[in-house]
Amino acid sequence: MYKMFSISTSLFLKPRASLKVQGDQGIASAGYYSTRVARNPNLEKLQTNYLFPEILDREVKHMEKYPNAKVISLGIGDTTQPLPQPVALSMSNYARALSTHQGYTGYGLEQGNKELRREIVETFYKDLSVEETEVFVSDGAQCDLSRVQLLLGSNVSIAVQDPSFPGYIDSSVIMGQSGELRNESGKYGNIKYMKCSPENDFFPDLSKTERTDVIFFCSPNNPSGHAASRAQLQQLVEFAQLNGSIIVYDSAYAAYVSDSSPKSIYEIPGSRKVAIEISSFSKMAGFTGVRLGWTVVPKELLYSNGFPVILDFNRVICTTFNGASNIAQAGGLACLSLEGFKEIMSKVDYYKENAKILVDTFASLGFRVYGGSNAPYVWVHFPHSRSWDVFNWILEKTHIITVPGIGFGPGGEGYIRISGFGRRESILEASKRLRTLLC
Amino acid sequence: MYKMFSISTSLFLKPRASLKVQGDQGIASAGYYSTRVARNPNLEKLQTNYLFPEILDREVKHMEKYPNAKVISLGIGDTTQPLPQPVALSMSNYARALSTHQGYTGYGLEQGNKELRREIVETFYKDLSVEETEVFVSDGAQCDLSRVQLLLGSNVSIAVQDPSFPGYIDSSVIMGQSGELRNESGKYGNIKYMKCSPENDFFPDLSKTERTDVIFFCSPNNPSGHAASRAQLQQLVEFAQLNGSIIVYDSAYAAYVSDSSPKSIYEIPGSRKVAIEISSFSKMAGFTGVRLGWTVVPKELLYSNGFPVILDFNRVICTTFNGASNIAQAGGLACLSLEGFKEIMSKVDYYKENAKILVDTFASLGFRVYGGSNAPYVWVHFPHSRSWDVFNWILEKTHIITVPGIGFGPGGEGYIRISGFGRRESILEASKRLRTLLC
Repeated sequence: MYKMFSISTSLFLKPRASLKVQGDQGIASAGYYSTRVARNPNLEKLQTNYLFPEILDREVKHMEKYPNAKVISLGIGDTTQPLPQPVALSMSNYARALSTHQGYTGYGLEQGNKELRREIVETFYKDLSVEETEVFVSDGAQCDLSRVQLLLGSNVSIAVQDPSFPGYIDSSVIMGQSGELRNESGKYGNIKYMKCSPENDFFPDLSKTERTDVIFFCSPNNPSGHAASRAQLQQLVEFAQLNGSIIVYDSAYAAYVSDSSPKSIYEIPGSRKVAIEISSFSKMAGFTGVRLGWTVVPKELLYSNGFPVILDFNRVICTTFNGASNIAQAGGLACLSLEGFKEIMSKVDYYKENAKILVDTFASLGFRVYGGSNAPYVWVHFPHSRSWDVFNWILEKTHIITVPGIGFGPGGEGYIRISGFGRRESILEASKRLRTLLC
Repeated sequence: MYKMFSISTSLFLKPRASLKVQGDQGIASAGYYSTRVARNPNLEKLQTNYLFPEILDREVKHMEKYPNAKVISLGIGDTTQPLPQPVALSMSNYARALSTHQGYTGYGLEQGNKELRREIVETFYKDLSVEETEVFVSDGAQCDLSRVQLLLGSNVSIAVQDPSFPGYIDSSVIMGQSGELRNESGKYGNIKYMKCSPENDFFPDLSKTERTDVIFFCSPNNPSGHAASRAQLQQLVEFAQLNGSIIVYDSAYAAYVSDSSPKSIYEIPGSRKVAIEISSFSKMAGFTGVRLGWTVVPKELLYSNGFPVILDFNRVICTTFNGASNIAQAGGLACLSLEGFKEIMSKVDYYKENAKILVDTFASLGFRVYGGSNAPYVWVHFPHSRSWDVFNWILEKTHIITVPGIGFGPGGEGYIRISGFGRRESILEASKRLRTLLC
């Protein structure tokens, strides 16, 4: 979900020379005005150079060096395939009707259109005891993640999979849950990094994992593409129960699950007492630009004093959010119709086929490859290499943009992530280049 | 922007009897499972009964008592008039094109479509030195307010106009900037309430106002409808400069300004060094359901250490937000075309005419009435009365829903807010009832 800045805003990454960060006195004597408001110390802690702007920077330099190269971007995971007609049409009709008295709607419920909440339950949580009133429709998983952080506040301790989507850690740092970044380890203080690698079947050794208040867990995982098995998730839920922890389960890639791995944490008995689930239409329905997602907070999930978490989440939603766009919600409803769902799943299959092509390509070259069957991401191991070096090597030899694994945490060192989002012809061309140039 | 809950979710307002808040021990012995995660103390501080659910509750009871009454809701400020055709059509076409390869778009820039940012500058900040890269497009002012709070963090001290939109205080409490609510005063600790009333021309006496890091200031004001004059805003900016404070200026109702009052804080010299501006398409263009707004952070605005605030805001936006819906942004662009802008302004005029009818109605009955000419809201004074009593009295006699002033802070006691949003026939009917029944 992290993605590229416009080149113009990448200027912002470094303060202009004249605005160098100095102590108050230095600034005052330098002769320009600053307020007396202290910079938020949490934002000060955040690493200043982040992944995707750095990738963009390297891409720009690469294109200066090879102006005629046809760069293929398999970096950022962005959908590329047009929406199914019935989905686009339903939004189109909804938007057009907004110019009529019959069709106009103002504020909707912050929690989302009731019909859409009902359809989300019907489609994704049938027989899992999730109720419509436990579903909160949002403008996407990344946005809801930050609202979940506002819910939790700054006093909680957290654990994340390592590697994982950087948003968990970054939003945690912004909320003030973390300590300082330790440069030697690449880890923030007060955050437990749960190493996930082929050695442990991408699932942390919980017998050696310290208790935290909150466990962020993404399955199918971004970046590794690993979908946790039922047995693994059962372990996770038991671990949370034992420790009285809350799992924040990110199922944004659930639509990509092809085997019997659970698509929702609520398939696991006992999870309603310990887990929030964040999910999204982005990668499932190509809604990365349209913006639609949801979060489930079960009524049984209680704070230590017995207070239901859902009440506080409802309050956060009503105070800091005003509902997803009514047009996007109409599109969401169309996605969940029989016809719409079939069509969006065929797009998911398309991306999965792309991922399979990439998996086969790397496997045929003798690399160890993970992911790609339950997720749109392919995770390739380059033992004893630094992931930025691998990134550079692939870019230099094939003009293909990937993502260095280190961008997802120290546990991603030695890996690169390649995205299966793209048009088939680009994927095939990428495969060809990889096969001929990386031999 | 605060609005009604669905009746089903209003069940959430009180935890079920079996889930009474108790100490850990009490809960454990009661035999049900709770996590060991402590409830966020900031959310614990938030007042549990809030304004609009309470109004809804009273409306429901009123309708049980008078099942045949035709209730007119002039409470929540929600737009009712259909969108101009060119605006709806542009969104409709954009949505339809998402099903084509040419028209499909995935992730946009978190900061918003460049063309829309440029048009916002052209339309609202021409000759005010605001640059396109200082404009951050959002899904609405309330949502951006909470992102500004994330930017500021929990260590800042804040001041708000009293009365004002409850979102400033509520988002501040959630961020941990406030102390406890003091029931006797109805005020939270650590928040400075700047009284604004007819006695001070709705502008605080700054010579008696304590310095705070941040000053939330809304003009035209919700609820009083007062637009601060140029002289008043000049005072405010000088006060902020003197104190090194940051003004968070909410101009969501700027389109309603009819006289020479500034529509943007950036009309005031020196403001770029002290002010952030949050604004919105909601009330200007009927986008309450479509969701679109923006925030301006000038490059000259610096923290005490000289670090530009815009860099941190950019980071917050990129971490906690993923851009406004691409369809809504297409609609925003259409609003700012020559034809579109003329049409949305005619809707604004329509609501202003409604407000004028309500002002005239109350004035003819001998009440002291404020607002309504630079804002869609009418603010009526009932000296020596409690605003909930006035609310009940009007509802009982006329079946009209208003908002009791106390809902906007202690300074709103003795007032009610009446919204000019509505269809003309409802406003005329309301006027008729008020004239005949309140005599």
